Amino acid sequence: MRFRIRPVDTSFYDLFADSANHLVNGVSLLAEMLSESADREDVARRMRDAEHAADESTHAIVKKVNSTFVTPFDREDIYALGSGLDDVMDSMDEVVDQIFVYGVNVLPAELSDQVTVLQRCAELTAAAMPNLRSMKELSEYWIEINRLENQGDKNHRRILAKLFSGEYDAMEVLKLKDIVESLEDAIDGFESVANTVEQIAVKES
Amino acid sequence: MRFRIRPVDTSFYDLFADSANHLVNGVSLLAEMLSESADREDVARRMRDAEHAADESTHAIVKKVNSTFVTPFDREDIYALGSGLDDVMDSMDEVVDQIFVYGVNVLPAELSDQVTVLQRCAELTAAAMPNLRSMKELSEYWIEINRLENQGDKNHRRILAKLFSGEYDAMEVLKLKDIVESLEDAIDGFESVANTVEQIAVKES
Amino acid sequence: MRFRIRPVDTSFYDLFADSANHLVNGVSLLAEMLSESADREDVARRMRDAEHAADESTHAIVKKVNSTFVTPFDREDIYALGSGLDDVMDSMDEVVDQIFVYGVNVLPAELSDQVTVLQRCAELTAAAMPNLRSMKELSEYWIEINRLENQGDKNHRRILAKLFSGEYDAMEVLKLKDIVESLEDAIDGFESVANTVEQIAVKES
Repeated sequence: MRFRIRPVDTSFYDLFADSANHLVNGVSLLAEMLSESADREDVARRMRDAEHAADESTHAIVKKVNSTFVTPFDREDIYALGSGLDDVMDSMDEVVDQIFVYGVNVLPAELSDQVTVLQRCAELTAAAMPNLRSMKELSEYWIEINRLENQGDKNHRRILAKLFSGEYDAMEVLKLKDIVESLEDAIDGFESVANTVEQIAVKES
Repeated sequence: MRFRIRPVDTSFYDLFADSANHLVNGVSLLAEMLSESADREDVARRMRDAEHAADESTHAIVKKVNSTFVTPFDREDIYALGSGLDDVMDSMDEVVDQIFVYGVNVLPAELSDQVTVLQRCAELTAAAMPNLRSMKELSEYWIEINRLENQGDKNHRRILAKLFSGEYDAMEVLKLKDIVESLEDAIDGFESVANTVEQIAVKES
Repeated sequence: MRFRIRPVDTSFYDLFADSANHLVNGVSLLAEMLSESADREDVARRMRDAEHAADESTHAIVKKVNSTFVTPFDREDIYALGSGLDDVMDSMDEVVDQIFVYGVNVLPAELSDQVTVLQRCAELTAAAMPNLRSMKELSEYWIEINRLENQGDKNHRRILAKLFSGEYDAMEVLKLKDIVESLEDAIDGFESVANTVEQIAVKES
């Protein structure tokens, strides 16, 4: 008689890396949408495709966690990380969609400060996922994400103050405020992912 | 000496069916609120009563899960399903309340497309709850809910584009956007319930 | 050989009391912000400091729950209570921040009704936290919070109806609606904390 070996399934790490790479792709589409010369309908369509691809990565994580006996860390933390990454993609998709559907004419230049924050967050998150295997160099990642979220928060207040300065009419503020808040949701989403990673690391240590 | 038998308590299924039936009732009140001849104050009052009745079903679920030793499926999934059903009712109550409190004069005809989606979702959900006992025919339910949510999402974008087309003034957009978003929250809520059911079914299979 | 005694760590109660006391402090800053003679920039700065101090209490709870072997009640309930208290502080901070950043000129007098509700909620919550140790006199607390939340809900509808009565222009409504909704979020947050306490008490009984 031979024992069937049931090893800890490690490919969760690859699935998290996939999810995070979708975010890197999402941010570049977002950046493209902000440029004045963008074909907005085309970018919005490609963003929707990217969001669907990210959804499939999330479903793969949920399916795997439900069918795997021994998981590399707590089941609920795997869910939290998977759905946290998915939430970021949803917020970025929402920004692109709002710009397209609302028919905003001119976007305030300050929005690109938030996209810069998002680009840095996405790169750091994608680089951190493979380190979940060794649990090494993760604290640098979550500390830097927290710093970026603080920066994003300051940008956000500055942009809101500008929207309400009297420079824009009520209808334009109505449109832009939604877009600005979705940008902030995406940044908050990266922080929430970093908090989940921190919690996983604390439990494992 | 006789053993006290502690059977799996099955009446959770009845409680979930109760909760889902409140949603069927809620949608018809919502449909009534949209008709031009509606006595809005009266419908809003009846909706509030319906929402309180639904709250009691939710409390019954929470109380039962806290006092039951052996539950038919994971405690946290029971909570998720109970509070998911409750969230849908809250969103539908919010739609009715916003129409009443904001004093909206004319509602865009497109809103009734979303109510049609909600009616179908409520019927499907109420029909699916008793099937939790046998875990049969549930996949047809959640696949159809996901299709309806996609339909609702397309309607939602079309309605938003109309709101921002220049046809409405800023104050009207401010009111209608809230209502339209609460309608979408209700549809998303049905999808979230279906996701919970899918997760329960996957674990049981 | 001597056994190492691992007693239930009781200082969770002190940490929850700390968190709740930050809320009492937060409400007084909020009340100060509403007075016509307030130096809004100064109050907003002090509120941000208060919010950071509250954050540290929350982190202390999360850190303790992650490093403690035997907790006085379920780990997930400790998280829920800690993050529930934190959410209330975030909502109150948001109210103060919105008043400052949006540059609202005149605040409707009715807002002070909501601050009165919040003051009562904060006092009751701070008084209830030490009772988690004995699990006594808690039902009076959560019943009264639920009553206050109902009161807050009625105030909220009345304030919204006023905002949309035609007395304010669209831009003013845009600003005030956010503030009014953040006030309601804070009240809802207190109810959510009370629900968590009720759930803990039911499990322990």
